[in-house]
Amino acid sequence: MNIALLPGDGIGPEVIDQAVKVVKAIGQKFGHNITFTEAVVGAAAIDATGEPYPDATHEIAEAADAVLFGAIGDPKYDNDPKAKVRPEQGLLLMRQKLGLFANVRPTFTFPSLVHKSPLKLDRVDGVDLVFFRELTGGIYFGEPRGRNEQGTKAFDTNVYSKFEIVRLARMGFEAAQKRRKLLTCVDKANVMATSRLWRETVQELAPEYPDVKVEYEFVDAVAMRLIQWPKAYDVLITENLFGDILTDEASVISGSMGLMPSASLGISNKLFEPIHGSYPQAAGKDIANPLATVLSAAMMFDYAFDLKEESKMISDVVNQSLEEGYVTEDIADGGTAYKTSEVGDWLA
Amino acid sequence: MNIALLPGDGIGPEVIDQAVKVVKAIGQKFGHNITFTEAVVGAAAIDATGEPYPDATHEIAEAADAVLFGAIGDPKYDNDPKAKVRPEQGLLLMRQKLGLFANVRPTFTFPSLVHKSPLKLDRVDGVDLVFFRELTGGIYFGEPRGRNEQGTKAFDTNVYSKFEIVRLARMGFEAAQKRRKLLTCVDKANVMATSRLWRETVQELAPEYPDVKVEYEFVDAVAMRLIQWPKAYDVLITENLFGDILTDEASVISGSMGLMPSASLGISNKLFEPIHGSYPQAAGKDIANPLATVLSAAMMFDYAFDLKEESKMISDVVNQSLEEGYVTEDIADGGTAYKTSEVGDWLA
Ligand SMILES: CC(C)[C@H](C(=O)O)[C@@H](O)C(=O)O
Ligand SMILES: CC(C)[C@H](C(=O)O)[C@@H](O)C(=O)O
Repeated sequence: MNIALLPGDGIGPEVIDQAVKVVKAIGQKFGHNITFTEAVVGAAAIDATGEPYPDATHEIAEAADAVLFGAIGDPKYDNDPKAKVRPEQGLLLMRQKLGLFANVRPTFTFPSLVHKSPLKLDRVDGVDLVFFRELTGGIYFGEPRGRNEQGTKAFDTNVYSKFEIVRLARMGFEAAQKRRKLLTCVDKANVMATSRLWRETVQELAPEYPDVKVEYEFVDAVAMRLIQWPKAYDVLITENLFGDILTDEASVISGSMGLMPSASLGISNKLFEPIHGSYPQAAGKDIANPLATVLSAAMMFDYAFDLKEESKMISDVVNQSLEEGYVTEDIADGGTAYKTSEVGDWLA
Repeated sequence: MNIALLPGDGIGPEVIDQAVKVVKAIGQKFGHNITFTEAVVGAAAIDATGEPYPDATHEIAEAADAVLFGAIGDPKYDNDPKAKVRPEQGLLLMRQKLGLFANVRPTFTFPSLVHKSPLKLDRVDGVDLVFFRELTGGIYFGEPRGRNEQGTKAFDTNVYSKFEIVRLARMGFEAAQKRRKLLTCVDKANVMATSRLWRETVQELAPEYPDVKVEYEFVDAVAMRLIQWPKAYDVLITENLFGDILTDEASVISGSMGLMPSASLGISNKLFEPIHGSYPQAAGKDIANPLATVLSAAMMFDYAFDLKEESKMISDVVNQSLEEGYVTEDIADGGTAYKTSEVGDWLA
């Protein structure tokens, strides 16, 4: 197994280090031959090469069996709407060039952390939902985009082709079949032409999955119900921009945002990353919570290598660290707070 | 004062009736000469005329000093992505033809209802924020929009001109000056060209309001922080689509969504409406909560007629009805539940 490591910015390198320790330990225990190749991305890549996603990085990512990715973003590039190169462009280029069209973002709860949720316990206890967010289309990439000559008018294009919707929706249907058999198609079909194509396409596919109940809900309604009663959801499918907003919204309800992993899947490439950002304030301090990245490595064994036992062993040891309180300060709750690297060592 | 009444669909007519009772009572008490002119909109208008926002309705709304609007939407038009005429088109046409470019959506709490919030008390107690959502631009109206010839590809255009951002942002700045002096500009400037124009324009205006602190936040971050710590916000300004999603999200945190009013303001026209929808399941049963519509009438006296005392008297009597438990079943909490019409009579 050839794994590309793209630590990126901020706390990225620190949390990736811990995931590597755990992956190495799994490799040893199960006798897998695992190699790692590191490459730069984001602000780190701009600083080193001028490009946020250099060709050399792409070659390494593309050649790998899976990519473990940290985070992107540096405050020195924020609040400058005229900046020519931005770290986030690296993320978008990477998604596009690797063809990572499906972002899989689960939201679930940990018994020992659910009290940290901003929601009342009865609303959030037992939440278990997963978003399939389309990741390489929509308004993120549609053309034309830009300004008029005088710079007084700006425009973006949201565009979706049927095949993009079909391949994402099928993943959602298949996931629903293995779960609670409820699929929610999130759109804004009362306003947007693209959303009407989404809804129509999902309606056409539905008969192929007779065991799955399909619900159609407007994005604004989902933004409400995700807080009112998140347990109502099982699998949600949605376009890129709605997915960006809703998956972040969903991530805070569990009370354990620092623990939520994600997968971004394409036809031949697969990338795994924690959903938390680059958290620049904590960078270099050895205090960041590595569990989301470690759980992303667990998703990697499952989704990229179909190695369920390895995947489960990682999730189990994460649960154990939570139960035994071997955790970083953000979730130590008055107990002993361990360093990022100490938690990584313990898990490994 | 010439008020146009557009009850619309579902529970619209019932809740508008109660607001009319209250407005009449205020008119009598303060000696205002108030006339009402009713007109159809939404599914009701399609049923009657084939059009969701008939010209006759527009003339009445345009000629009025203020519009009191109920709700739009009927399930018989849902889930049919190919329907030619949809009730929501009436809403969009109305906003556009009346030039209602600013949607003002406050979120605040009522002490007697805050326990109904899905959020924990410490997170939500005392929340007091207001969104200024741009309402006549963006992806709701941008061209081109539609399908390719084969119908396999759909597209929408998000477009903003500087002047649209300026006029909305100024409203936000001015509101912030009268409140806690914090303005949050919500955008997706790391991805969208339109968002970069928003951010740039707000940055240019900021020096004119030196007493207002301006923060720039990505829409996905706001979707999170609105739940994590809503008290951090004061005034938020945003484009049409982000506003649609975030104002609905914000509306559930107070625990009193059925009570939240809104105003939609243009240069010469002003419309007031409850933010709850047409709630078709309850239509005709005399059980719908009229308080959001009554509070929208309070906003009308303030924003359309600059009559603060009249406005405050309405808010006060709503508070009194809550304290004395003279409320509809949705918030009766085991106490006596009164009918929609009874609550209206009591308030009047
Ligand atoms: C950084 C940004 C471009 C990115 C996105 O909008 O997709 C991020 O918010 C995410 O969700 O991964
Ligand atoms: C009904 C729909 C077109 C409308 C919108 O998206 O603006 C509604 O959600 C709203 O917020 O008033």
